[in-house]
Amino acid sequence: MIDINKAIESLNWQKEPRGLYEPIEYTLASGGKRLRPTLALTAAEVIINGGLINGDAIEQTLPAALALEVFHNFTLLHDDLMDRADLRRGQETVHVKWNDNTAILSGDQMLIEAYKLLSDVPADKLPKVLKWFNEMATGICEGQQLDVDFEHMNQVSIDDYMRMIELKTSVLLAYAMKIGGYIAGANEAQQEALYQYGLHIGLAFQIQDDILDVYGDPKTFGKAIGGDICCNKKTILLLTAMETTDAESKAELLQWMMASDCNEQKIAAVTEIYNRLGVREACEAVMEQHTSLALAQLDRLPQNDATERLRLLAEKLVTRKS
Amino acid sequence: MIDINKAIESLNWQKEPRGLYEPIEYTLASGGKRLRPTLALTAAEVIINGGLINGDAIEQTLPAALALEVFHNFTLLHDDLMDRADLRRGQETVHVKWNDNTAILSGDQMLIEAYKLLSDVPADKLPKVLKWFNEMATGICEGQQLDVDFEHMNQVSIDDYMRMIELKTSVLLAYAMKIGGYIAGANEAQQEALYQYGLHIGLAFQIQDDILDVYGDPKTFGKAIGGDICCNKKTILLLTAMETTDAESKAELLQWMMASDCNEQKIAAVTEIYNRLGVREACEAVMEQHTSLALAQLDRLPQNDATERLRLLAEKLVTRKS
Repeated sequence: MIDINKAIESLNWQKEPRGLYEPIEYTLASGGKRLRPTLALTAAEVIINGGLINGDAIEQTLPAALALEVFHNFTLLHDDLMDRADLRRGQETVHVKWNDNTAILSGDQMLIEAYKLLSDVPADKLPKVLKWFNEMATGICEGQQLDVDFEHMNQVSIDDYMRMIELKTSVLLAYAMKIGGYIAGANEAQQEALYQYGLHIGLAFQIQDDILDVYGDPKTFGKAIGGDICCNKKTILLLTAMETTDAESKAELLQWMMASDCNEQKIAAVTEIYNRLGVREACEAVMEQHTSLALAQLDRLPQNDATERLRLLAEKLVTRKS
Repeated sequence: MIDINKAIESLNWQKEPRGLYEPIEYTLASGGKRLRPTLALTAAEVIINGGLINGDAIEQTLPAALALEVFHNFTLLHDDLMDRADLRRGQETVHVKWNDNTAILSGDQMLIEAYKLLSDVPADKLPKVLKWFNEMATGICEGQQLDVDFEHMNQVSIDDYMRMIELKTSVLLAYAMKIGGYIAGANEAQQEALYQYGLHIGLAFQIQDDILDVYGDPKTFGKAIGGDICCNKKTILLLTAMETTDAESKAELLQWMMASDCNEQKIAAVTEIYNRLGVREACEAVMEQHTSLALAQLDRLPQNDATERLRLLAEKLVTRKS
C-alpha cells in the first residue's frame, strides 16, 4: 500500500531559486485530505486486485496520482489569490505570506510541476492520460469562470449550477478515478464506471458542502455557519428556494438578498425560509440520488477491498458533518 | 510552406464561457514576431530538406510549434500582470482591458491550452517532447524569479545575469529548435546543434535588447530610450560598467543610481559613463561571440534553404535597430 502523504513529502523542492519553490513546498505541506491521489490509487487497486494485471501497476499510477494532487493545490493557490482569501487549512495563503506576484509565478510553476509528474506516466499510456488531464484542467478553469459569471447573473438555473459544480469540482475526481484505473489496465467499461463514480461523489460532495454551510454544526464544520447566505452565494439551496411557487416566501427571500450588510438576523431569517420551503430535504434528496448513482457504478467493477473502501467513502459523504 | 499566422488564426476560441476564452483570443490576435513557432518549423525544414524523412514531418511539427507560441503568449500575459504593464504590442494588456483575476485565470487556461496542443505530437515522440517542454517552461519561471530577485540584490555578476537571460529568454528558443528538429527526425547530434543555435541567438538577442535600450534610435526602437537606466535595471551594460576598475567612474555611477527620480540628465550622464568605459563595445563583443557560436552550429546541420534562413536570422540580429 502506497502512503500518499509520504510520497508527497518525498517530492524535492530544495531547488533554486528559493523564491519560486518555497511557496510550492509550503502549499503542499499544508495537508488536506489528499482525496484525489487516494482516489486514483484506489481506482488502480480496484483493477489490480481484480486480477487483471501485475502489482507494478500501482507504482506506475503514482506519478499521475501526485500530478493530480499538485494540480489541485495549484488551483487552490490561484483561487485563494483571486478570492483574496487570507487563510487555507489554518495557515496564511501564499499571497498573504509572500505577495501577489509570488502567488502568480509559483502557482504557474506548480501547474508545470503537475505536468512534469505526468511525464513519468508509462509511455504507452501517456497520450491518453495527457489528453484527459488537459480536459480535466480545462473543466476546472471553465467551472471557475462560470462561478465568477454566476455572481453577476440574475437568473441561474439549478441545471446551470449543476454544470458549474460538475466542472469546478467533479471532473477532477472523475478523471482521478479514470486515469488511475486506466494506468492499472482498466478496460473501457471499467474506465467509464470509475469516471461516473468520481463524477457523482463529486456532485454529492459539493451539494453536502452547500448544505453544511447552513445546517452544519459550528463545532465540527470548521468555518462560520451562514457564510453563503451572507454573500447571497448562488448555492443549490438558494437556487432551490428561488424556484418556489410560494410568492410570499420568494418576495421575502429577495428582500433579504437586497440587504447590503450581513448579520445573524439575515442568516436566521433566510434559514427559516429554507426550512419553511423544505429546501434542505430537497437538496438532500438530490445529494442522495448522486450518492446512489456513484454506488451503482461500483457494481460494474471487480469486487475487493478497494471497491469496499470506495463504497464506504460514498456512504460517509452523505453523513459527514465537516 | 506552413503559414504560421494562418495556423494561429485557425485555432478555435469561440467557446464558452466567453470570459475565459475571449482574453486568450485577444492575446493571440495581437501579433508579434511568431519567432518561436517559426524557429520550430524552420528547424524541422532543415532536417526534412536534409532528406532524412518524409514531408509529413513538417505537418507533424505544427502542434508543438503552436504550443510554443501559445506558451510564450501565456508568459507575456502573466508577466505583464506582474509588472503592471499597461500596453503590449500597442494594445491594452488583459488585466487592464478586463481585470487582474481574468488575467490570472485566462493565463492559466492558456498554459493548459499549450499542453493540449502538445498532446497532438505523434505518440512515439510525445514522451521526450513533453519532458523538454516542461524543462523549458520551468526555465522560464526560474528565470523570471531570478529577474525579480536581482532587483533586490546588491551584487549581481555578469555570470548570474547570463544565467538569468539564458533561462528567461534563451531556453524557449533553444527548445523550439530542438523539439522542431526532433519531431522531424533529427539525430542526437543535430538536436544538440539546433538547441545550441537557439540558445546562442537568444543570448545575443537579449544583449542586443539591452544595448538598444540605451543606444537605439528612438524612431525605430519603438519605446523610450534609457528606460533601463532610469530604473537602475541590472542589464549587461550596467553590470559591465560596475565591474570597472576606474574607481571614479564607478562612484559617479553609484551616485546616479541613488537618484530617486529619473530624468534626461540621469540618462545622459549614465550613457556618458558607459561611453567613457567602452561598455557598448564590450557588450557588442559578447553579443557577437554568441552570434558566432550560433552560426557555427549551422555547419553541423544539413545545408539547404532553411539552414540559410537561420544563418540570415542570426546575422540580422547583430545589426537590428528595433
